[in-house]
Amino acid sequence: MKWTKKLRQPKLQQYIEADPFITDDELAKKFEVSVQTIRLDRLELSIPEVRERIKGVARKQYDPVKALAEEEIIGEMIDLELDSYAISILDIKQEHVFTRQNIARGHHLFAQANSLAVAVINDELALTADASVSFTRQVQAGERVVAKAKVADIRGSRTIVDVESFVGQYPVFKGEFHMFRSDRPEKEDQT
Amino acid sequence: MKWTKKLRQPKLQQYIEADPFITDDELAKKFEVSVQTIRLDRLELSIPEVRERIKGVARKQYDPVKALAEEEIIGEMIDLELDSYAISILDIKQEHVFTRQNIARGHHLFAQANSLAVAVINDELALTADASVSFTRQVQAGERVVAKAKVADIRGSRTIVDVESFVGQYPVFKGEFHMFRSDRPEKEDQT
Repeated sequence: MKWTKKLRQPKLQQYIEADPFITDDELAKKFEVSVQTIRLDRLELSIPEVRERIKGVARKQYDPVKALAEEEIIGEMIDLELDSYAISILDIKQEHVFTRQNIARGHHLFAQANSLAVAVINDELALTADASVSFTRQVQAGERVVAKAKVADIRGSRTIVDVESFVGQYPVFKGEFHMFRSDRPEKEDQT
Repeated sequence: MKWTKKLRQPKLQQYIEADPFITDDELAKKFEVSVQTIRLDRLELSIPEVRERIKGVARKQYDPVKALAEEEIIGEMIDLELDSYAISILDIKQEHVFTRQNIARGHHLFAQANSLAVAVINDELALTADASVSFTRQVQAGERVVAKAKVADIRGSRTIVDVESFVGQYPVFKGEFHMFRSDRPEKEDQT
């Protein structure tokens, strides 16, 4: 189907409301128009660029990161509530992919998720003890990975953080991280 | 105990024979002398520098890497027998550690192990499907991590690679990587 501008613009607005993480690139593919056309549409509709939109979505000024320096987070922090959840985005560039296949290397997705699991911990010291991870879909250069971390359990000095990463609506990575923190007394044997 | 040069030098030779991966730094600590002293000892004993020693240990010219470009390996490849085993070393530098605690970030140890698990696969395409990893001891800047990968099982398009990483004699990382390869027919349901 070929969209006229009049039909496309309200639809575009709907898409962005439903998924504020959607990029101009993805929208251009959806409507089979150029990225430039999407940018003009957004300008006319006064819809800000994705990065600004996402910051608008974050419900409030997010909590300050405690366990590491914010610039040590792999990707860009979008939202954070300590000991609860965190969101970051990572734009996959040429430096992140295997040169031959253009597929993102697993350790970059791991690094994004792992640093998010560290960042969500409400402690000055948070270290990874164990992790189980799955790479569920290949990620290409030019794609944007949104990682969402949730604290699943806090038990003494151990915290379990579940991280799921998506490109658009597609899950690409899943991980369970067992984090060690310093400030809580070890209670594992007592509970 | 304070070692005289006469006592130290034969002992030094023994240590290096037992563990060719041992660094001048580690030897200096063992004998409570300066790194410069160890270097002079090695010169007098005609023992090459650790990097050269390790290359001597590798039993033969190692196999050429297939699944990725060799410069994409995180760390330095020391030995490789495709579909069998691989060894790499990674020197932990300031860029690898959390600035506050000087502890190596987990994703660098993961990246070394994961790229070794990719490199050991005898196929042009090798991707990581799942991984379970444990970080068993903290690694500091200045330490050298030796990773050893072993192919545990090849079943159809899935290959299981076990990786263990050490600093000196101490295990610091352990991982089981489930790798996907392209060239073998899927036999999992038949076996």
